[in-house]
Amino acid sequence: MINQLYDTSLSLLTDLYQLTMAYGYWKSGKAEQEAVFNLYFRKHPFQGGFTIACGLNSVIDYIREYRFNEEDLAYVGTMTGSDGKRLFDPAFLEYLRKLELKCSIDATPEGTVVFPNQPLLRVQGPILQCQLLETPLLNLVNFQSLIATKAARMRQVAGDDTLLEFGLRRAQGPDGGVTASRAAYIGGFDATSNILAGKVYGIPVKGTHAHSWVMSFDTEQEAFDTYAAHLPNNVTLLVDTYDSLAGVQHAIETGKKLRERGYELGGIRLDSGDLAYLSIEARKMLDAAGFQNTSIVASNDLDEHIMASLKNQGARIDVWGVGTKLVTAYDQPALGGVYKLAAIRNENAGWSYKLKLSEQAIKVSTPGIQQVRRFRDGKDFVSDMIFDIGTPLVGKSTMVDPYDFTRNRSFPETQHYEDLLVPVFADGELIYSLPSIHDTRKRVQDQLAHFHKGIKRFVNPHTYPVGLEKSLFDLKTELIMKFRNQGPEVTPEP
Amino acid sequence: MINQLYDTSLSLLTDLYQLTMAYGYWKSGKAEQEAVFNLYFRKHPFQGGFTIACGLNSVIDYIREYRFNEEDLAYVGTMTGSDGKRLFDPAFLEYLRKLELKCSIDATPEGTVVFPNQPLLRVQGPILQCQLLETPLLNLVNFQSLIATKAARMRQVAGDDTLLEFGLRRAQGPDGGVTASRAAYIGGFDATSNILAGKVYGIPVKGTHAHSWVMSFDTEQEAFDTYAAHLPNNVTLLVDTYDSLAGVQHAIETGKKLRERGYELGGIRLDSGDLAYLSIEARKMLDAAGFQNTSIVASNDLDEHIMASLKNQGARIDVWGVGTKLVTAYDQPALGGVYKLAAIRNENAGWSYKLKLSEQAIKVSTPGIQQVRRFRDGKDFVSDMIFDIGTPLVGKSTMVDPYDFTRNRSFPETQHYEDLLVPVFADGELIYSLPSIHDTRKRVQDQLAHFHKGIKRFVNPHTYPVGLEKSLFDLKTELIMKFRNQGPEVTPEP
Repeated sequence: MINQLYDTSLSLLTDLYQLTMAYGYWKSGKAEQEAVFNLYFRKHPFQGGFTIACGLNSVIDYIREYRFNEEDLAYVGTMTGSDGKRLFDPAFLEYLRKLELKCSIDATPEGTVVFPNQPLLRVQGPILQCQLLETPLLNLVNFQSLIATKAARMRQVAGDDTLLEFGLRRAQGPDGGVTASRAAYIGGFDATSNILAGKVYGIPVKGTHAHSWVMSFDTEQEAFDTYAAHLPNNVTLLVDTYDSLAGVQHAIETGKKLRERGYELGGIRLDSGDLAYLSIEARKMLDAAGFQNTSIVASNDLDEHIMASLKNQGARIDVWGVGTKLVTAYDQPALGGVYKLAAIRNENAGWSYKLKLSEQAIKVSTPGIQQVRRFRDGKDFVSDMIFDIGTPLVGKSTMVDPYDFTRNRSFPETQHYEDLLVPVFADGELIYSLPSIHDTRKRVQDQLAHFHKGIKRFVNPHTYPVGLEKSLFDLKTELIMKFRNQGPEVTPEP
Repeated sequence: MINQLYDTSLSLLTDLYQLTMAYGYWKSGKAEQEAVFNLYFRKHPFQGGFTIACGLNSVIDYIREYRFNEEDLAYVGTMTGSDGKRLFDPAFLEYLRKLELKCSIDATPEGTVVFPNQPLLRVQGPILQCQLLETPLLNLVNFQSLIATKAARMRQVAGDDTLLEFGLRRAQGPDGGVTASRAAYIGGFDATSNILAGKVYGIPVKGTHAHSWVMSFDTEQEAFDTYAAHLPNNVTLLVDTYDSLAGVQHAIETGKKLRERGYELGGIRLDSGDLAYLSIEARKMLDAAGFQNTSIVASNDLDEHIMASLKNQGARIDVWGVGTKLVTAYDQPALGGVYKLAAIRNENAGWSYKLKLSEQAIKVSTPGIQQVRRFRDGKDFVSDMIFDIGTPLVGKSTMVDPYDFTRNRSFPETQHYEDLLVPVFADGELIYSLPSIHDTRKRVQDQLAHFHKGIKRFVNPHTYPVGLEKSLFDLKTELIMKFRNQGPEVTPEP
């Protein structure tokens, strides 16, 4: 999306403090010091039990296009501090002008089911470069993962029904809409109303018509007939401009005329009122008139909870049009992803492991150059273990029980597993080939099918076990204890 | 923003149904029929008592750049219906290729305080063109008005404190961030952390540093000293990486060294823990050490309610850094703006007035070519009257009491007023000059100062009176009664 829609360099799409820190690293001779940052979130959105990783495509676009152009540098050169004097030495602008990203990035592929504290991205490279990327990477991954997750929740409810995304008019800006359309499709939607998303991403595009079409004619019947006359292969008629069931009757009349011409009435759409009652009545009317194959489309501020309630009430809805609640992730419009320093190269060419303390245990970061090993039992996923890639995992792997640190779980060497993070950039070179959006969409459903169904519940979902490999857990504990006791002067050996 | 950031034509940034309706209008010979649409919302966001209009700048950019290019048309030409056959006749693509927008648009200027059911935009022109614009105009105005309103609520709490917007990493995509930075500034924020927003819109940019800066050094003291050494005119130190009050002490040490060099410690920043307690303690420590002018910056999931609570607790916070809750409008991430047909030119060259019925009274639209007259009493605004511009308002104006339709309010001809909508495009030509962003920002506060303070309350705000001019009210009532009784066959004369 980004490289197709944006003309301007996006290297300034970051917080000022990234640039002032970059300047500080550069001035203090640390710019090239190698560091490792992990991008992860701490809590599933929507009080749910799973999250879908999404946004890597935009990350790849962003990194590939990364450069400071003359216009960027000219602007940065004008920035001033509290005394009105310039913030940045001109030699630093020269450094930025020549900057080429040399980071290595490993990532969890889009469409993967992920859990709190697992790195979605691991960025390794010169600390100055890693730092500059913090804000844009969070922006891109947070939003798209949020929307893909919301869509996947709706797909859980919808079963085999058709799901249409209609959100552009209420989305948070143009690319809030276009990007949401992509993430919604990946999460399990069938199509979008957004033509630009269809063009850019190859997503199927569907649509009906608006109230204004009906209002622009003298009668609803004339409006329906005219629409069907000109778009006979795309006839889904919105029936609630004046009175929904009278509208269904008008749609049936149009359907009869269409059939005489060799076409079928594709659907009717309900957009207000009691969707359970109206859909049941409309179904009866359509069936009685011989339109058993005409779909009933429903829309009007739907979300997964309203959809579940309508299904429980026996609503006869075949196609769900979902807008605002999906594309803004209405009940939780932000995923709280963070990007934390986990290790930095020391003078002995070894790693100094780093963590951020907090009075809230959930906010203490995990050190290490992390990978996630997802164990299978048969076809099902049973447990994820976060480990440091420097730790030799020979023989059985031991993971600290995430719910009780006094207990361990062990997995024999014969246990099947997959490691989630895959190499995407090596020293700045793209070495990953993005799957098609359709394959990514399929991956979501394939993955979800192999987790315990309890994680997909909306109320009090099962917590899938994600623990730390024992030596990483011990390292983290040691660091916490030393920092709490002595302050941050400790640089332990791994 | 749009014309600076987007390379691609955005004419396809719309719902498919706009294009199929356009096709239907074209096929049925109605494409050029003149119509009037109003863009308005039905309810203030955040259970509040006012809304700030914003987004006209993007609307202007969008309209000026509007064109279907060859790539757009090629894509549209590939679109198919349910039978796999093309949706659109090639002659229609030719029509789109030659399309030049000829709409006239009147708009309420950005930064104006607005209320439900008032048109923020009135679009008049060929119905095909008006229809295509529905989705993008809603997308642009809904989001930006929402964020400007959220920011203005925070400004009400903050008084003269400094407000910084820090939201980019949690925003809904790149322009979700950049556009939100602009709207937040207009709503009353002082600066953003988003460098790109600073470059594009001329907004002041501010920043501190992140935990990673501190973690990348062996000690917090070394981290602070190094930062201050290299950026002495931009020193706000984040003190909570390990222990907030120990961090304040380290910041004071750095501040003493800075002072020896002739600089001042600008601020310290608290990002976790009990912000009321910590800010009071930090203030005491700073004052005791002679740093009375050092600011205390607070951040950590702030919104207007938490800010109010902290102020009530006597927190000593000078600068508020607000991110997620602002840029996503967290508690209500979408404004429900709609775009409704209000009149269409009939064969006699007069207007046929149109409305959309609904079982919910709030969803019944208002017909007419609307303007909003805002009456003053002295310097204060007292009442808004929506009227049809075709109605001669001679002598006193009579407005139907919005809370009791059996009562009227009259305003003498001598009553001062201003009409809110101003001409922006005339037959496709831009005839409006956008004020500077700084003037628009000032307009918000100037406007708010002249409304009754009750509308600015967060809990049960006062409902500012907005009524219909009596002849427009009578017309609407007549249309509703006729539609309810006879169906939509009525074309009354105004």
